[in-house]
Amino acid sequence: MSQQLIFTNEVAPQLDGLIAAHGECRVFLIADVNTATLVLPRLLHDSARLSDATVITIPAGDTNKNLESVARVWKQLSDNGATRSSLVINIGGGMVTDLGAFAAATFKRGVRFINVPTTLLAAVDASVGGKTGFNFNGLKNEIGLFREADAVVISTCFFDTLPVEELKSGYAEMLKHGFLTSANECNELMNTDITQIAADRMLTLLERSVKVKCDIVAQDPTEHGIRRALNLGHTAGHAFESFALAQNRPIPHGYAVAHGLLVALILSHMKAGLDSGWLYKTAAWISDNYGTLTLTCDDYPTLLRYMSHDKKNDSPDRIAFTLIATPGDVRCGVIITPADITAALDIYRDLLHV
Amino acid sequence: MSQQLIFTNEVAPQLDGLIAAHGECRVFLIADVNTATLVLPRLLHDSARLSDATVITIPAGDTNKNLESVARVWKQLSDNGATRSSLVINIGGGMVTDLGAFAAATFKRGVRFINVPTTLLAAVDASVGGKTGFNFNGLKNEIGLFREADAVVISTCFFDTLPVEELKSGYAEMLKHGFLTSANECNELMNTDITQIAADRMLTLLERSVKVKCDIVAQDPTEHGIRRALNLGHTAGHAFESFALAQNRPIPHGYAVAHGLLVALILSHMKAGLDSGWLYKTAAWISDNYGTLTLTCDDYPTLLRYMSHDKKNDSPDRIAFTLIATPGDVRCGVIITPADITAALDIYRDLLHV
Repeated sequence: MSQQLIFTNEVAPQLDGLIAAHGECRVFLIADVNTATLVLPRLLHDSARLSDATVITIPAGDTNKNLESVARVWKQLSDNGATRSSLVINIGGGMVTDLGAFAAATFKRGVRFINVPTTLLAAVDASVGGKTGFNFNGLKNEIGLFREADAVVISTCFFDTLPVEELKSGYAEMLKHGFLTSANECNELMNTDITQIAADRMLTLLERSVKVKCDIVAQDPTEHGIRRALNLGHTAGHAFESFALAQNRPIPHGYAVAHGLLVALILSHMKAGLDSGWLYKTAAWISDNYGTLTLTCDDYPTLLRYMSHDKKNDSPDRIAFTLIATPGDVRCGVIITPADITAALDIYRDLLHV
Repeated sequence: MSQQLIFTNEVAPQLDGLIAAHGECRVFLIADVNTATLVLPRLLHDSARLSDATVITIPAGDTNKNLESVARVWKQLSDNGATRSSLVINIGGGMVTDLGAFAAATFKRGVRFINVPTTLLAAVDASVGGKTGFNFNGLKNEIGLFREADAVVISTCFFDTLPVEELKSGYAEMLKHGFLTSANECNELMNTDITQIAADRMLTLLERSVKVKCDIVAQDPTEHGIRRALNLGHTAGHAFESFALAQNRPIPHGYAVAHGLLVALILSHMKAGLDSGWLYKTAAWISDNYGTLTLTCDDYPTLLRYMSHDKKNDSPDRIAFTLIATPGDVRCGVIITPADITAALDIYRDLLHV
């Protein structure tokens, strides 16, 4: 599986080149209604090839990352005569790249697709690595596939269409990649002001961060081993995200990951010898950038139940975490008892003064 | 991708062995209501491991090979705590093995599955080769994936639960494999009385026939080249099948393939030099075993439209056929004009006295 990863702020000409290289074919653009309004007009203006494409729009937001939206894409591909040699281009955040990729990968048993992430979170995480899917039965990404895009065109030029919360949300995944890499990388990321990064410098940081993910995915595309490293912060993070959603106070994915990362660092200190200095430094940085979550010890059983539903668990009774001994030294699939998770949540609340 | 193909009439002990080899896991059996009634009790009686399995049933028949049935399987897997290390066993005809395999391959981005075909058609065709999927938007297998089962357990011991039409339906695919192999194979198959084959001899014929398919699939798993050989008889066959269905006179898939095969042989004679002796011999054999279809020249435009929708076509305007110059000498992806298809349908009707 050879995937082209292209870092550029000249997106439209790159897409024209990729379409030309694909050969004579029908092109379908999948976007949510926001991206269709804010980004597509720019791309169409700058492109020689996209004006002939069929645009398929889906409603925006994670609550629409569902079977109805997938069926809508399938129906439009089918009604508009898509064939196996058609080309699908998913333009948007992780919701669109995940869902559009799944729809493309399963239409007529698979048509080729390109991802064009328009958010930092999608650029650094969702659009690369081959995870596709949608939410089902109240569970995130319960249905999906591992299937890499033929190409991913990564740019920072659409980030100006986004609120700063979106930028911060993606930056949390970059910090996660930092903790999988080195102390230097962590320090550099935490010493940078997220809201003041120039587009070019962001593209450089982004390229380095995406490379961390790609190196890990290449070793283990279907997540049976080292790929679980990328789950750092996500066991508790997904639980925070589901918990907040169930309380009708949804938080961005990256915010949940930032808080989940702190829980993982606490467990890393308890179980893998991570120096406690990282806990204090990261807690302060998270508090400054992502605020705090509303949480009491009465919520622990609910959070534990969400953690036990994680796809990476072999069994609902065994909750696995990715931990680090030092930044860059990763321990995957460490089984943690409910008692230790409870202790970590207590420390988490202390550190953030929740 | 290494797939275990097991030919045996001791199905339950084989499944017990496969489950044990899979390691500690939850087992889910997917079957339609007919198979759940006619076959499952036998299997459960003879097996030491299957009694703990969760049984998921779906309504029977190709009209239920739809998104609703897929969603039903996903929901039951999710509600019953299936994890990535669970094992799904699809037991039934091609409808169940296609749909169950798709559901398993996309649940939590893929759990392992075993196919246990209970019909000749599923044994010789659907259950091996990795094509999974379901009907959508009025089109057969419009949504799906290429994903091979971990193991396929092929037997003839459940064929006694089937009407003779089902046996004939599968036998048409075996004859297709014959035409992809040699004149000897074709003659042996056409000189055998379908309704009088003993279970052991059938298992031998079946093993030879499945091997033809596996050899071709191994060379081209995702159908970009030689795998199209297996499409012999299916371009017209699928059109006959859709046509009959639209007229509320559905015919079994294999019956449609038998008639489609004759159309392919006629085109092979017209375009690839196939000896006309094969046309007369096969027409007589098809007429004896599969009867005739109700068809007039007024139906040709409808049939052509169905043919143009075939997934193997690059474009709806170019109808591709698999042809043979002699049995075993295959020509894939031959573009045939509507005028030539019309001429072939005229000859078809002459040969069968329609």
